[in-house]
Amino acid sequence: VTGVAAQGPSDGSGEDRLIARYFRPLAKHPGALGLGDDAAVIKPPSGCDLVLKTDGVISGVHFFPDDPPETVAKKVLRMNLSDLAAKGAKPMGFLLAIALPQDVPESWLAAFARGLDDDARIYDCPLLGGDTDRTPGPLSISISALGTVPHGTMVRRGGAKASDRVVVTGTIGDAALGLKLRRDPGLAKRWGLSDTQRDELIDRYRLPRPRNILAESLRRWASSAMDISDGLAGDLAKLFRNAPVAADIETARVPLSDAARQALAVDPSLIEAVVTGGDDYEILATVSVTNLEPMHAAASAVDVPLTEIGGVKDGRGETQLLDSLGRPCTFARPSFSHF
Amino acid sequence: VTGVAAQGPSDGSGEDRLIARYFRPLAKHPGALGLGDDAAVIKPPSGCDLVLKTDGVISGVHFFPDDPPETVAKKVLRMNLSDLAAKGAKPMGFLLAIALPQDVPESWLAAFARGLDDDARIYDCPLLGGDTDRTPGPLSISISALGTVPHGTMVRRGGAKASDRVVVTGTIGDAALGLKLRRDPGLAKRWGLSDTQRDELIDRYRLPRPRNILAESLRRWASSAMDISDGLAGDLAKLFRNAPVAADIETARVPLSDAARQALAVDPSLIEAVVTGGDDYEILATVSVTNLEPMHAAASAVDVPLTEIGGVKDGRGETQLLDSLGRPCTFARPSFSHF
Repeated sequence: VTGVAAQGPSDGSGEDRLIARYFRPLAKHPGALGLGDDAAVIKPPSGCDLVLKTDGVISGVHFFPDDPPETVAKKVLRMNLSDLAAKGAKPMGFLLAIALPQDVPESWLAAFARGLDDDARIYDCPLLGGDTDRTPGPLSISISALGTVPHGTMVRRGGAKASDRVVVTGTIGDAALGLKLRRDPGLAKRWGLSDTQRDELIDRYRLPRPRNILAESLRRWASSAMDISDGLAGDLAKLFRNAPVAADIETARVPLSDAARQALAVDPSLIEAVVTGGDDYEILATVSVTNLEPMHAAASAVDVPLTEIGGVKDGRGETQLLDSLGRPCTFARPSFSHF
Repeated sequence: VTGVAAQGPSDGSGEDRLIARYFRPLAKHPGALGLGDDAAVIKPPSGCDLVLKTDGVISGVHFFPDDPPETVAKKVLRMNLSDLAAKGAKPMGFLLAIALPQDVPESWLAAFARGLDDDARIYDCPLLGGDTDRTPGPLSISISALGTVPHGTMVRRGGAKASDRVVVTGTIGDAALGLKLRRDPGLAKRWGLSDTQRDELIDRYRLPRPRNILAESLRRWASSAMDISDGLAGDLAKLFRNAPVAADIETARVPLSDAARQALAVDPSLIEAVVTGGDDYEILATVSVTNLEPMHAAASAVDVPLTEIGGVKDGRGETQLLDSLGRPCTFARPSFSHF
């Protein structure tokens, strides 16, 4: 495609050089054709469904311009991997679209590509193809990830049944607190955090830990699942939106890291950030009482903490977060109007 | 994902509303799950390879901010469809990533979605999923398209053999001239174009006509193929980059529309824009002498003009555009240094 204000072909060759230098080394999968053809080609395993997800980030909107390029790369890939995990899918590969301002130094690109390459290997999710453009706007990255599940087994939202239990992996709210610390470094002292605790929370914001290792277990044992990317409270509402049932969540059972617990002890109102802040990239799932034991065993076998936070109730009632006296929690933030 | 400077969940719900209003009506394919889950799911036909492409546009870079939203939508989808066509692939569906400035009126989005919906139906390439974000930068749209070919049959670059003929579909250079007219409306008069001719060239710039109808014939008869998106000259070089052969192209045989012919008669130097300008979205292919007759018959049967513009020669020589005396054409534009 020709630029409306550009010199035409010369831009194309600059783009080709960047791709050759920074992205071709990542295109090790034979189906990527060394990024030297018009499209990638890949044979999906027979009997499988494809699971498709696209998600992206924009500098200054979803990440800080001075975030390390390696973690920016890893975060945008892991955001997509987290969705594949929650759907029970095995990663197959991804397409990358990146729009670069003129002033991005090549050292940024080199570090970005390095981070992406690391994660592509760790998660066995190779770069298959991409598109590089120059933009007068902020640096933007969009990834489309492909995964596979045996036909008909993708884990959906909306499959919960009455008496199922609601579980989450890991700890909730760390990334939201990490974001607050990133915006206002003085908070670490006010919350009484050690340097290690502060760094842990910021790290959780920068670098999701998608639970791809649990994908197969979710297919076997979960009645519904999704990843928590927009905050536990809002995502709970989404999980039950098309279900004939709802859930009561005991807020006191929401699993917290030591660092989050410390911050909450100083400022209890942070519970709102913990349950409504985003970027957890943990799994929220419903599991029948029968499947609860094998689901716990599966999580334990791969060292993923799994915590029951509530139960599914009959009827199309409201999904609620309850305080220790069983009263619905109310928060000031507008997302709660959706409950 | 949480915005670094945003109010958090409330943005999410605004995004949800836009998706529900403008994009959910397009998600008619059952695998899109009404855009109401975390991912799309689709069963690829058995025995097929997936063909994957991602390409996008940025306002003010690849299209004019005042271009009609319907044609912006159609162009970005058709850019991707054109690659599927050249690779011999049948469209299966697409993912859409769109970043919207705050000031985009909903009427723009409504028209954009209408254009996209029209083309998704015409090309049988349904919306499967997407990602909508707000951006402080220009409006940006990225599409990832999926197609299928019978296993092992994707048409590649680099497959040309000595004595093959080089063919192109349609006419070349119209979009490049259309872009010049879009930038400088006064040119229409200088080139002696009728209003109809002017409108035809601008329309060719705005609205590619991808040759998906020829996909199967390319798989059967072409030894290599790609779509022409960055200009005939540069794309010819790419087609032969990894081939053990090269091509001599007779510039005088490059097919031109009546409007382009008229402009060239007034200003012969426009031949450079014609062969180096982008956005043709025609097919460039090599076909063996034996397959030439059935390839012509196939194109003729679906009313696609197909023109021989040169031949493949032995050896790793340079692919050249030759003038009527057989001398290599030289142009001022830098892309020609690549030849």
